[in-house]
Amino acid sequence: MYVILVYDIAKDENGAKAWRRIYSISKQYLHHVQNSVFEGELTESGIVKLRAELKQWIRDDLDSVLLFKSSGSRWLKKEVWGKEDKATSNFL
Amino acid sequence: MYVILVYDIAKDENGAKAWRRIYSISKQYLHHVQNSVFEGELTESGIVKLRAELKQWIRDDLDSVLLFKSSGSRWLKKEVWGKEDKATSNFL
Repeated sequence: MYVILVYDIAKDENGAKAWRRIYSISKQYLHHVQNSVFEGELTESGIVKLRAELKQWIRDDLDSVLLFKSSGSRWLKKEVWGKEDKATSNFL
Repeated sequence: MYVILVYDIAKDENGAKAWRRIYSISKQYLHHVQNSVFEGELTESGIVKLRAELKQWIRDDLDSVLLFKSSGSRWLKKEVWGKEDKATSNFL
């Protein structure tokens, strides 16, 4: 499954630490393509594992994390408007 | 076509103005679901129009805008981990 992960972490006093943890965990599973955006191929069990790890740092009342799942990368095209992050060029 | 638009606008002296313009233009075409994330149904010509409008404000050397296109919303599922923005509840 091809997934896109986007997150918006509240900037309160614990926000920076949560952001760093969510960023470093996400980087173990997916490719960083933009400030708070990751993409890549994950199995359903990979998604379950990623979610379990991230859940420890997501504050349900403060932080928003969205995971878009496409049944395969062939169903998902990407256009880059503006600067191309080096990281994005070799994915979709 | 179902699209997800994510952007990361450089925070230089013109960044705030660019962000506001990109936000308000994007809102005319798509649903705002997270800080710099929009989603919704768009035709190919709608995408061309959106791009033309946004291009006036995207600084190619500074700003990153990614558009993910899925051939239809049925190929794209969404999971919400953390707080559900009111705006996201009635889309995917």
